[in-house]
Amino acid sequence: MSTTEFESLDKCLESHLPEEELKEVKRILYGKETKKLELPSSAVDAATDRDFELKGFQFDAAQEQLRPPRKVRVGLVQHHIVLPTDAPVMEQVNAMHSRIGEMVEVAAMCGVNIICFQETWTMPFAFCTREKEPWLEFSESAENGHTTRFCQELATKHNMVIISPILEREDVHNTVWNTAVVISNSGNVLGKSRKHHIPRIGDFNESTYYMEGDTGHTVFQTHFGKIAVNICYGRHHPLNWFMYSMNGAEIIFNPSATVGTLSEPMWPIEARNAAIANHCFTCAINRVGTEHFKSEFTSGDGQKAHHDFGHFYGSSYVAAPDGSRTPGLSRTRDGLLVVEMDLNLNRQISDRWNFKMTGRYSEYAEELTEAVRPDFKPKIVK
Amino acid sequence: MSTTEFESLDKCLESHLPEEELKEVKRILYGKETKKLELPSSAVDAATDRDFELKGFQFDAAQEQLRPPRKVRVGLVQHHIVLPTDAPVMEQVNAMHSRIGEMVEVAAMCGVNIICFQETWTMPFAFCTREKEPWLEFSESAENGHTTRFCQELATKHNMVIISPILEREDVHNTVWNTAVVISNSGNVLGKSRKHHIPRIGDFNESTYYMEGDTGHTVFQTHFGKIAVNICYGRHHPLNWFMYSMNGAEIIFNPSATVGTLSEPMWPIEARNAAIANHCFTCAINRVGTEHFKSEFTSGDGQKAHHDFGHFYGSSYVAAPDGSRTPGLSRTRDGLLVVEMDLNLNRQISDRWNFKMTGRYSEYAEELTEAVRPDFKPKIVK
Repeated sequence: MSTTEFESLDKCLESHLPEEELKEVKRILYGKETKKLELPSSAVDAATDRDFELKGFQFDAAQEQLRPPRKVRVGLVQHHIVLPTDAPVMEQVNAMHSRIGEMVEVAAMCGVNIICFQETWTMPFAFCTREKEPWLEFSESAENGHTTRFCQELATKHNMVIISPILEREDVHNTVWNTAVVISNSGNVLGKSRKHHIPRIGDFNESTYYMEGDTGHTVFQTHFGKIAVNICYGRHHPLNWFMYSMNGAEIIFNPSATVGTLSEPMWPIEARNAAIANHCFTCAINRVGTEHFKSEFTSGDGQKAHHDFGHFYGSSYVAAPDGSRTPGLSRTRDGLLVVEMDLNLNRQISDRWNFKMTGRYSEYAEELTEAVRPDFKPKIVK
Repeated sequence: MSTTEFESLDKCLESHLPEEELKEVKRILYGKETKKLELPSSAVDAATDRDFELKGFQFDAAQEQLRPPRKVRVGLVQHHIVLPTDAPVMEQVNAMHSRIGEMVEVAAMCGVNIICFQETWTMPFAFCTREKEPWLEFSESAENGHTTRFCQELATKHNMVIISPILEREDVHNTVWNTAVVISNSGNVLGKSRKHHIPRIGDFNESTYYMEGDTGHTVFQTHFGKIAVNICYGRHHPLNWFMYSMNGAEIIFNPSATVGTLSEPMWPIEARNAAIANHCFTCAINRVGTEHFKSEFTSGDGQKAHHDFGHFYGSSYVAAPDGSRTPGLSRTRDGLLVVEMDLNLNRQISDRWNFKMTGRYSEYAEELTEAVRPDFKPKIVK
């Protein structure tokens, strides 16, 4: 069985384990059982017609006396590129717009309030090629590019907050960024969050295209809750999640594009650890499929030149502050994951587990300030 | 099936999944396959006679030209208390010494270089009772208490570094601490690491007994590698793991005592995330069994008074910097996990993934310094 044939961990476990043991396995792997969310049959039918997976789950919180529940429905979208990578740029972008348009329509039927697309969703993840053209032609203005205008229409039409991660071209200084544009449910650009940590993994170096983001750890107060966007490689940095949380984020989205045997076992760990450690919800989104490029390229690993970066394994999921998580979307299919969460759970878990109050952060601020000095002497007892 | 009957995730998966799918499931759950380590049959027989589980695994690294492999064998011990909790204190301690003595003997047969016992290993985990007596009578001097002397003998006899987490009584100021004593393979007390973060989880408050540790993030340079000890609740704090790593730790041990449905799904996540994020090995150790106390106690949760804290689910494991991990020890039995690791893997993975170089730590030092000020204004866009 090749890694691209294995559709999902959950399906495999469900089809082989006896019911009672499956329950224990799921409890240990996923925590408290995540309830299935009833979705309208029109949405289920539309997803089938449009050939994507649709799954719904919900995280409840305890009823409080003074605060009403704060239920929000979040949508995570993962998808293949639509056209071949050598099709004309504008055709590729438009094809992706139409695919996303039909998926967002289903999200709207499911009552989604905040939706997030995958990293650089309008284009192939072409940074492995190290070619500048035509890939830089996919870059657009975050404020008023073609894609932002498209998302503003969707946002207004469906009363939905949209997180749209694109390749950003900033015209004043002529710089390029990996940026998530956050659009309010009334269609305004609330702001943007630029990728904070830029990968250098082996020879795969995205700083060939864009540098470390300069937007810090901004949190966006939307109509439905306080959200932040930690793009892709930033999920490997616990301090990054932490600082979004310190700025008040209740849901942190992690739109990603990741492949391969090395990253897949890390995938279920990092966003979930962040949800636990920071008493918040995290949403991990990864694209699906294998993207073929016309020009061959090498990967600095002694292997022959090749035409693809590997299989993007999807598996998008949501993790909750109580350590539980939803099953993942498919490893191979386009999909929409709809998750209803009561944001009251964050404070309830924080009140119970108390990580923010037992965190000794002032001392860490001092220790870290020391540790980054060039003359830092590590505290080693011999 | 009750949670105390389910012996282990791995056994369950192995007995139900077809071989090919099992391989994919394990790859996704555990990363690159951890090889089984051949252990001497004398050790296997001794473990069977002494009624504990013995498992061995190994993590390899690539061969380098200039550095020879740095292989070290680590032992993780999990065990039940031996006598009832109302037996005389000294009898309880001595019974635990003898149990550990016979387990360490098997570790020695397996060539273990560094061994770590569970949190406060000489006593029941009685802090749920909120009684001071007789539990404080289990406290001992870290430098020359009965247990430290016992461990020094073992260390010398077996040429083994021993990490001995005990309840420490410091006689000068008459304070009590939750402390790991680190004893070199020549039998010297190298130093101690006091529990850095003290739990307040619901009504479970260990600061009734001991306060936040004052030993900072000390790393111990032993004959076999640089090690650190992050006791129990500190595993929920990513900054804590991080700061041990910033001080040079190659292996971070996490001796713990944890129960229950809320913490069990977090257990496979946190130490493993720390190994990934910090390019080091982590060793998570939890005790096993249910400990009954004579006096009943309540838990501030609306439930009736009871006599136990819940089931300690064992499941000790080792995680590697490449995202892989060993299977866990049993959820119900005493056990010794022997893991051979080539410490060269840490730098190899760091060179590949580059988290320390892409971490932007100076900026975090500034941001965190800001964030802990009483007049901190979170960065929220409205």
